[in-house]
Amino acid sequence: MTTKPSKTLETFPNPQPGRDYTIRIKTPEFTCLCPKTGQPDFAVMHLEYVPDQACVELKSLKLYYWSFRDEGAFHERVTNEILDDLVRATQPRFMRLTAEFLVRGGVYTTVIAEHRKDGWTAPVAVQLP
Amino acid sequence: MTTKPSKTLETFPNPQPGRDYTIRIKTPEFTCLCPKTGQPDFAVMHLEYVPDQACVELKSLKLYYWSFRDEGAFHERVTNEILDDLVRATQPRFMRLTAEFLVRGGVYTTVIAEHRKDGWTAPVAVQLP
Amino acid sequence: MTTKPSKTLETFPNPQPGRDYTIRIKTPEFTCLCPKTGQPDFAVMHLEYVPDQACVELKSLKLYYWSFRDEGAFHERVTNEILDDLVRATQPRFMRLTAEFLVRGGVYTTVIAEHRKDGWTAPVAVQLP
Amino acid sequence: MTTKPSKTLETFPNPQPGRDYTIRIKTPEFTCLCPKTGQPDFAVMHLEYVPDQACVELKSLKLYYWSFRDEGAFHERVTNEILDDLVRATQPRFMRLTAEFLVRGGVYTTVIAEHRKDGWTAPVAVQLP
Amino acid sequence: MTTKPSKTLETFPNPQPGRDYTIRIKTPEFTCLCPKTGQPDFAVMHLEYVPDQACVELKSLKLYYWSFRDEGAFHERVTNEILDDLVRATQPRFMRLTAEFLVRGGVYTTVIAEHRKDGWTAPVAVQLP
Amino acid sequence: MTTKPSKTLETFPNPQPGRDYTIRIKTPEFTCLCPKTGQPDFAVMHLEYVPDQACVELKSLKLYYWSFRDEGAFHERVTNEILDDLVRATQPRFMRLTAEFLVRGGVYTTVIAEHRKDGWTAPVAVQLP
Amino acid sequence: MTTKPSKTLETFPNPQPGRDYTIRIKTPEFTCLCPKTGQPDFAVMHLEYVPDQACVELKSLKLYYWSFRDEGAFHERVTNEILDDLVRATQPRFMRLTAEFLVRGGVYTTVIAEHRKDGWTAPVAVQLP
Amino acid sequence: MTTKPSKTLETFPNPQPGRDYTIRIKTPEFTCLCPKTGQPDFAVMHLEYVPDQACVELKSLKLYYWSFRDEGAFHERVTNEILDDLVRATQPRFMRLTAEFLVRGGVYTTVIAEHRKDGWTAPVAVQLP
Amino acid sequence: MTTKPSKTLETFPNPQPGRDYTIRIKTPEFTCLCPKTGQPDFAVMHLEYVPDQACVELKSLKLYYWSFRDEGAFHERVTNEILDDLVRATQPRFMRLTAEFLVRGGVYTTVIAEHRKDGWTAPVAVQLP
Amino acid sequence: MTTKPSKTLETFPNPQPGRDYTIRIKTPEFTCLCPKTGQPDFAVMHLEYVPDQACVELKSLKLYYWSFRDEGAFHERVTNEILDDLVRATQPRFMRLTAEFLVRGGVYTTVIAEHRKDGWTAPVAVQLP
Ligand SMILES: [Ca+2]
Ligand SMILES: [Ca+2]
Ligand SMILES: [Ca+2]
Ligand SMILES: [Ca+2]
Ligand SMILES: [Ca+2]
Ligand SMILES: [Ca+2]
Ligand SMILES: [Ca+2]
Ligand SMILES: [Ca+2]
Ligand SMILES: [Ca+2]
Ligand SMILES: [Ca+2]
Ligand SMILES: [Ca+2]
Ligand SMILES: [Ca+2]
Ligand SMILES: [Ca+2]
Ligand SMILES: [Ca+2]
Ligand SMILES: [Ca+2]
Ligand SMILES: [Ca+2]
Repeated sequence: MTTKPSKTLETFPNPQPGRDYTIRIKTPEFTCLCPKTGQPDFAVMHLEYVPDQACVELKSLKLYYWSFRDEGAFHERVTNEILDDLVRATQPRFMRLTAEFLVRGGVYTTVIAEHRKDGWTAPVAVQLP
Repeated sequence: MTTKPSKTLETFPNPQPGRDYTIRIKTPEFTCLCPKTGQPDFAVMHLEYVPDQACVELKSLKLYYWSFRDEGAFHERVTNEILDDLVRATQPRFMRLTAEFLVRGGVYTTVIAEHRKDGWTAPVAVQLP
Repeated sequence: MTTKPSKTLETFPNPQPGRDYTIRIKTPEFTCLCPKTGQPDFAVMHLEYVPDQACVELKSLKLYYWSFRDEGAFHERVTNEILDDLVRATQPRFMRLTAEFLVRGGVYTTVIAEHRKDGWTAPVAVQLP
Repeated sequence: MTTKPSKTLETFPNPQPGRDYTIRIKTPEFTCLCPKTGQPDFAVMHLEYVPDQACVELKSLKLYYWSFRDEGAFHERVTNEILDDLVRATQPRFMRLTAEFLVRGGVYTTVIAEHRKDGWTAPVAVQLP
Repeated sequence: MTTKPSKTLETFPNPQPGRDYTIRIKTPEFTCLCPKTGQPDFAVMHLEYVPDQACVELKSLKLYYWSFRDEGAFHERVTNEILDDLVRATQPRFMRLTAEFLVRGGVYTTVIAEHRKDGWTAPVAVQLP
Repeated sequence: MTTKPSKTLETFPNPQPGRDYTIRIKTPEFTCLCPKTGQPDFAVMHLEYVPDQACVELKSLKLYYWSFRDEGAFHERVTNEILDDLVRATQPRFMRLTAEFLVRGGVYTTVIAEHRKDGWTAPVAVQLP
Repeated sequence: MTTKPSKTLETFPNPQPGRDYTIRIKTPEFTCLCPKTGQPDFAVMHLEYVPDQACVELKSLKLYYWSFRDEGAFHERVTNEILDDLVRATQPRFMRLTAEFLVRGGVYTTVIAEHRKDGWTAPVAVQLP
Repeated sequence: MTTKPSKTLETFPNPQPGRDYTIRIKTPEFTCLCPKTGQPDFAVMHLEYVPDQACVELKSLKLYYWSFRDEGAFHERVTNEILDDLVRATQPRFMRLTAEFLVRGGVYTTVIAEHRKDGWTAPVAVQLP
Repeated sequence: MTTKPSKTLETFPNPQPGRDYTIRIKTPEFTCLCPKTGQPDFAVMHLEYVPDQACVELKSLKLYYWSFRDEGAFHERVTNEILDDLVRATQPRFMRLTAEFLVRGGVYTTVIAEHRKDGWTAPVAVQLP
Repeated sequence: MTTKPSKTLETFPNPQPGRDYTIRIKTPEFTCLCPKTGQPDFAVMHLEYVPDQACVELKSLKLYYWSFRDEGAFHERVTNEILDDLVRATQPRFMRLTAEFLVRGGVYTTVIAEHRKDGWTAPVAVQLP
């Protein structure tokens, strides 16, 4: 069974659209290329979102991340672009992407971007003791 | 002494209904089947709630989780369903279920769903320094 | 020097009643008996409070916890009862008791109960960066 | 694509039989049934071995572990049986199986069994500072 | 179902007496009384052994530890006594008991005692890299 | 070069009084005497503050903590007294002292006291994702 | 290829100025000299900011930190100065610098300073459960 | 400055060939392709060796690891091949390669291979207490 | 009840002199004075020994450590002296003292000294897998 | 009080030359320059030794490490050179230096070198259980 990288993000219907709930997906295997030097960069991707009508399908998410393997990508730009692609595909109520890059030149960089659907407000957070 | 899995959730009367307080129950031994591949999935279940008139009985909770051992279940759907069952059985003031699934295809997924009773608001949180 | 378990909670005058401040006392050595099976249960007790006129004396707190060694006690009930006893003895501005029970039947249970004095509000929390 | 549990352990030829080297395979998802109570038991399986002519194929190892899901199995016996099956299938120079069971009745049990091929002795261990 | 503490250690036949293998059993819930002050002491008990013809039954081990709950016991003496009782009951090839007591007077004490059967020597240890 | 304990807290001018910023100073080497038994007590001192016109000089802070080495001091009282001394010396916009005492009688105690200057309010906290 | 320390902070255009997002950059290799004793001081620098039109270029940030290697610098002053330089170069919506100095005289010091652009307010924080 | 992946391992003369000493090099950024599915695999590479006349140059080692980015490679085979390449290039007295692969199918695999020069024996290890 | 520091180390008879076993005693509260500067030094003391006819009494050990509170003591010398005192008092088969001093001048120092009784050899160590 | 870097390593007489014992000194603040790029390198230095007639004086060790601040130094060479200097100054029975460099180019390097005095053999190591 051979699979291939793909820019297509597949979704499935949210099984519980009547409730605001959270889905967290951690992928420690993101890699792309540094546009300046051509050398590989690596990151751990943390996605968390409140779905609306659609959830992102896990395997397609993995193939989507894979599609960056041979692309040049700056840290700040690629984080925002991936978030935009995921928002376009799933139209979530809320989505946050945290891209935690492995050390480069002795420096550790993390980029975090969020999207909130127009008109949606988070349920009042209950902080249990 | 033989016990069996069961969909019945037993409860006992809340010994202190006059106070909003928190009960946390962690169960690291949840397993079900992947509806697509038929292979086993595993999760750690974190339940936390503010009881109203009823508390969930621990042994019955364990047998209830056990009842999913031979069932196919998608991550997002099963988390919401378990929360619904627990809400139906205990009618809590507040309940949150965090289902932390073990890695699948290099991807770590966690689903968190909450229920709040109509008209209930959380006590103002006191954050001691 | 022999000491004995005791239900009496001794106090001493709060040395600084003009200020709302926090006292935290962790006791990893609480044990009681399960009312159903008679078997020992164990817990770590986390007490935190803002004293008013009285502070709980540490040695008497230890003897008080000891007094549960031969008593049957359900998790939810005993946490609320101990909080009630401590509130009665010290009349604090705020008090929280976290009872973190050791695993039973593969399940980890924690119960957290709070008391707030009538009319007292917590100082505005300062969250330094 | 549906897969099924299986008692068959598949192997592939050791790509470097001229060298004694180590393969470690950790599987956190073993579950079987307690023969006394019928309740599920869970374990993390740690396999480490020095292959001779054959290596165990990972997917078949996973299906093999899965085959215990509906079987009753005592901790000590099942650890020795799995080791025996793996030795029979791969005829390794050395093999060790560590079965780390999740807590039962407040007690944590681990069973470790080893097999050494007749006439094989481990290379002198080099302990670098 | 009520159970009681007991000095009787039950055993079952070693399912694999033809092999030297290791069984580790950790029990974090040991408590006895200090013979000087009468106050409770607490310990985590780590038992590890190579069985010969008999294995110690887990539930009976738990009831045996429970039997010290109301007994006065010095750290050094009780560790040696428990080892002696376990050796008498199971006649193991090798046994080690590590009693890790909780802090007393600002001091952390651990006592470790071992028994080796006459004529038994440990298999040559294989230290995989 | 011999130095001595001292109750004098020296300060230096805040280099940036135009900005509310935080200074954190952890000192793991505080010791005093228990007023009841005469035995030594130990604590880790965590000081955090927003300076106004003066900052506390580090060496003088160390000598100040040292001055408690031969003094009897109850946990609750000494924490409040040290805070009062530090407030008197530096007149900060905000100051918090956390005294984390080492275990005594199996019990872990921490005392936390705060001071806020009249009329000062904390800047709105920015919680970056 | 030889590089040199430099006080110049280079920037590049923010690829997504339409969104408030976070960039975190940790540099564990800051060193300067203590103005009193001339001895080296070391710190881990944590920078986090919400860019406006410009992002700080990583290599130039590293050379900028390097420029302090032979300069005398007090903890409180240098943290504020670096923040001021970074604000001047990037004009961010929000910026926080945490300078975590290695232990000096048994004392651990951390200084945290923030800058907020006039008129900018942080997006309402969404705290997912 | 653009760099490229390369199979060439460059070396430099061992600055201290008169002494057996250890060099450890950890590289968390190895990636190759699974020959069965074509999907990316990831590993952390731990190299440790006692050099003889040559040491491996760090940058060339990095480019060498990079050269596997588009190659299919089985875990066991690639670990042995990389060790063989490194031995050929540096002719070390001793070398060990530990390839710690990220989870695949819920299974964690590590492969460890060693090479010892003919006639070389490790210095007697000094184990300081 | 007032206690005092004391140079006298009290012992009690070894309850099991027929067996070589280990006693470990950790004391995180040692303090003395630096002979050069007069400033306090702090250490965590780790004592481990195989008793012969006598065991050291815990409370007297604590008072003995306390006796260094006002004494000047170099790290290397005081570790050896304490070991000598403990050996003189208990005549153990084997004893090791590890003095782990808190950081001074950015430097962490640990001193470890051992004593072995003439003619005593350690039992062959059994290393269970 | 101004101090300066220095290549001179001062010693003091070993207070207990009749015993083989261990001294460990960790210094997390070593920095030098990369001879290729001129950029700063950083390392944590772990020194451990069995003294003969002389011990290294801590402050002079710190000034010695400081002397590398403006020197170019390759990882492998500088570790061996520092060990040689320390051996020359103290003539120890045994000495080991572990230089743990901070990440460079995504690669973590550690170099460990040892010296053993002619004719000295380590005492038989006692491994307590
Ligand atoms: Ca990683
Ligand atoms: Ca992160
Ligand atoms: Ca688990
Ligand atoms: Ca979680
Ligand atoms: Ca807890
Ligand atoms: Ca284990
Ligand atoms: Ca415990
Ligand atoms: Ca232990
Ligand atoms: Ca400490
Ligand atoms: Ca604390
Ligand atoms: Ca550091
Ligand atoms: Ca910090
Ligand atoms: Ca590893
Ligand atoms: Ca240590
Ligand atoms: Ca390090
Ligand atoms: Ca290291």
